[in-house]
Amino acid sequence: MSQIAINFQDAQKAFLILKTLDKDKIAGFLEEMAKQIDAIRDDLIPTAARESHLPEGRITGELGRTLGQIRLFSALVAEGSWVEATIDHPDPDRKPAPKPDIRRMLKALGPVVVFGASNFPLAFSTAGGDTVSALAAGCPVLYKAHPAHPETSRMVAESIKNAVRISGLPKGTFHHIEGGIDTGQELVAHPLAKAVAFTGSYRGGKALFDACNARENPIPVFAEMGSVNPIFVMEGYLADRMDAAAAAYASSLSLGVGQFCTNPGLIFVPRSQEETFAAAVVDQLKEVAGAPMLHEGICHTYYQALETLTQSKKLKWLLHSEETDVLTGNVALAKIKASDWLADEAFQEEVFGPFGIMVVYEDRDQLHALAEKLKGQLTCTIWAEEEELQSSGDLLHLIEEKCGRLLFKGVPTGVEVGHAMQHGGPFPATTDSRSTSVGSYAIKRFARPVAYQDMPDSLLPEALKEGNPMAILRKVDGVWVNY
Amino acid sequence: MSQIAINFQDAQKAFLILKTLDKDKIAGFLEEMAKQIDAIRDDLIPTAARESHLPEGRITGELGRTLGQIRLFSALVAEGSWVEATIDHPDPDRKPAPKPDIRRMLKALGPVVVFGASNFPLAFSTAGGDTVSALAAGCPVLYKAHPAHPETSRMVAESIKNAVRISGLPKGTFHHIEGGIDTGQELVAHPLAKAVAFTGSYRGGKALFDACNARENPIPVFAEMGSVNPIFVMEGYLADRMDAAAAAYASSLSLGVGQFCTNPGLIFVPRSQEETFAAAVVDQLKEVAGAPMLHEGICHTYYQALETLTQSKKLKWLLHSEETDVLTGNVALAKIKASDWLADEAFQEEVFGPFGIMVVYEDRDQLHALAEKLKGQLTCTIWAEEEELQSSGDLLHLIEEKCGRLLFKGVPTGVEVGHAMQHGGPFPATTDSRSTSVGSYAIKRFARPVAYQDMPDSLLPEALKEGNPMAILRKVDGVWVNY
Repeated sequence: MSQIAINFQDAQKAFLILKTLDKDKIAGFLEEMAKQIDAIRDDLIPTAARESHLPEGRITGELGRTLGQIRLFSALVAEGSWVEATIDHPDPDRKPAPKPDIRRMLKALGPVVVFGASNFPLAFSTAGGDTVSALAAGCPVLYKAHPAHPETSRMVAESIKNAVRISGLPKGTFHHIEGGIDTGQELVAHPLAKAVAFTGSYRGGKALFDACNARENPIPVFAEMGSVNPIFVMEGYLADRMDAAAAAYASSLSLGVGQFCTNPGLIFVPRSQEETFAAAVVDQLKEVAGAPMLHEGICHTYYQALETLTQSKKLKWLLHSEETDVLTGNVALAKIKASDWLADEAFQEEVFGPFGIMVVYEDRDQLHALAEKLKGQLTCTIWAEEEELQSSGDLLHLIEEKCGRLLFKGVPTGVEVGHAMQHGGPFPATTDSRSTSVGSYAIKRFARPVAYQDMPDSLLPEALKEGNPMAILRKVDGVWVNY
Repeated sequence: MSQIAINFQDAQKAFLILKTLDKDKIAGFLEEMAKQIDAIRDDLIPTAARESHLPEGRITGELGRTLGQIRLFSALVAEGSWVEATIDHPDPDRKPAPKPDIRRMLKALGPVVVFGASNFPLAFSTAGGDTVSALAAGCPVLYKAHPAHPETSRMVAESIKNAVRISGLPKGTFHHIEGGIDTGQELVAHPLAKAVAFTGSYRGGKALFDACNARENPIPVFAEMGSVNPIFVMEGYLADRMDAAAAAYASSLSLGVGQFCTNPGLIFVPRSQEETFAAAVVDQLKEVAGAPMLHEGICHTYYQALETLTQSKKLKWLLHSEETDVLTGNVALAKIKASDWLADEAFQEEVFGPFGIMVVYEDRDQLHALAEKLKGQLTCTIWAEEEELQSSGDLLHLIEEKCGRLLFKGVPTGVEVGHAMQHGGPFPATTDSRSTSVGSYAIKRFARPVAYQDMPDSLLPEALKEGNPMAILRKVDGVWVNY
């Protein structure tokens, strides 16, 4: 039996034990995990910075986010109402047939395979949002480390294992696995795997999606595959704030060397303002020094993508990026006429790095056409005055159809971790637009409803017992109550 | 442009209008739909009975269920909290960066393709649970009628169209489409289709699942593909109620000529009680007269499946069913040793009709093995005394892993339509164990979360406006409140 097969057997055993644990035990484990990771911060931050080539300041921020995220899920589990407990009481006198007692709640899916992301060595990696939301749901995790930051991953894995031990959880709750594509394939092909979470490229995510649908028992794949996060600029907006807007765009485009899933790689600008705005953005971008990308492979792919685009006669380069060495990402900006953009979907493809395409549109009709042509996105941003958007017919609705998060006047980079966050969107941004990979609703990916019919109180899960011992919000006979 | 392509364009137009409507408008439309269908009941019942070969009494009950189901969704929409409105307030003073205002809710997916089922000409057909939950979510429906009951379907479709007109909804809200497999393929291949709902055979559901995953933009398929709904019988249970249990099993197995997705086609019985129990069941089943099945195709498939099973040396026939004519389904019962059942998955395949396999197990260990080997089911039923189940280790957890609904001491036929019902289960019972096709949570299949960041109140959906004009339950800064 392969090591992975052994891991899965351990995980399945752990799963059956996790099912029987009190919610406070899981919440306490997550709390302990945050504590263990925080305890190694002085070693972890420089290690992650060295391996990812990201500045220590950024890693420090990411660590804070990661710990906050773990504690958010700990609190969510301790509060307990995420299981959607729903009770319909019986009616033995109902005609023609008695009405049974039915009680429904969300239960953990089983062992989950999580793939680490290169661009967030902490927040979307070993103890990142996917791992933590799966554990919070009660699913053991088989974590496939990203090879770009192996030492960081090992350190965090040790912290998680410490927390598992200290909290008295079964050892099979968490597995740290290193390897290449073959390892990933073996993981998602195993019959005991019940779901997969992934953050990365379209190619990688789509391959997992296809593999998991082709299984004898298909399983859900929650792949966040990035997007170009367009900004829709309307005339009224730029009129008063040309320079501030240019600075905001340049800053968001180049933040973290453009290596965010929410990087605004596309901006739709009205022709009347395009020249002034472009000049202002270029002025800003010229000040942005090149910086090391995550690894040489990503840097190479970035320049290759720019090289391919350079072949197109339709793109006009406002700022061309030179490949200065094997690791440095330099910003680049091009523009294109809306009619040319509409004619070729290649200009919608994500270029992972600090590169943007400015699409110049003629009028409102063309702006509508751009929205209609757009593929699914994690985010769309609208830069408009309130009144001009209100008077734009169904533009807002058209744009909303294309994204998971809709911003007004801001920039899409910087994903808030909270209850209301939606980080997901229609295909190809993700493989499941009905899910989020950031925020507390991420836990719902790893659970499924189970209904119990006429089950005695002693055999029911705590959340469904008649006396509501967990004191959670429940839907009882159609009414939400917490007693 | 094909008629279906025109229908989709209409549906998409309707979708953008439905998005702007007040929830009471949708709720009123559903109420009107129930009224319109109820108004034709005197013609509808005999028509459905004639086309489905089901007794008028059964159809009358099914109509009641269908109307109740429509009204359940009307009430759900009117109440409004199903959208999971979630608000995280901003904090402009937060360091290092201000915290934005984020508001999240579920929004309709877009046009949905629904396939009618042959075994529920009303409750899972034209105005059945799939259609109604999609419409309730705000999704236009392209309904593919089942060819087994064309006139019934047309009559109900007219009622829905009347309700659309009377309620002032856009005409493209509902499309009634007749045709064969090609028509179904064209429907699910259309780029504007956003989801598919289906109830029927494994072959049909799996083909739709594969087709929709192979699309350029994959879409979710909610296929309920039936199952064998095992009953796990433990010794303590039968001891006191041998005859009553046999009668209950025989009645559930033969109800509706066995043509329910929840038909208990499998029963696990301890060897010590098997002979007595089998004899009692056979006594009951002998009294069950053959009855017409839904159509000749289903009847033919039923006898073909029995014929194939007859080839097996492992099965011992307790009651062999004779093919008396092209439409009549006669009950049949076979038994098999647990070790033989465990060795061949063919004995887990659903035989659609009044046929059951009794699996004879030796001891508790073998009962555990049976539970572990079992594929995903809509339901599992446990016949045990409370104490013996409590002392059976993780048997309850093992069984729970295999189903969407877990019954204690009852029979799985008879699916309650309510808030707590879960009608779904792990593959191959359905293609999405995280969804239900019966009960109010069915609406969630047809919606996805959208988050709005820093959106002015005037541009927010009603459910997310600061003043809570809909007065719905919302999660505000992590706390559920209805103000």
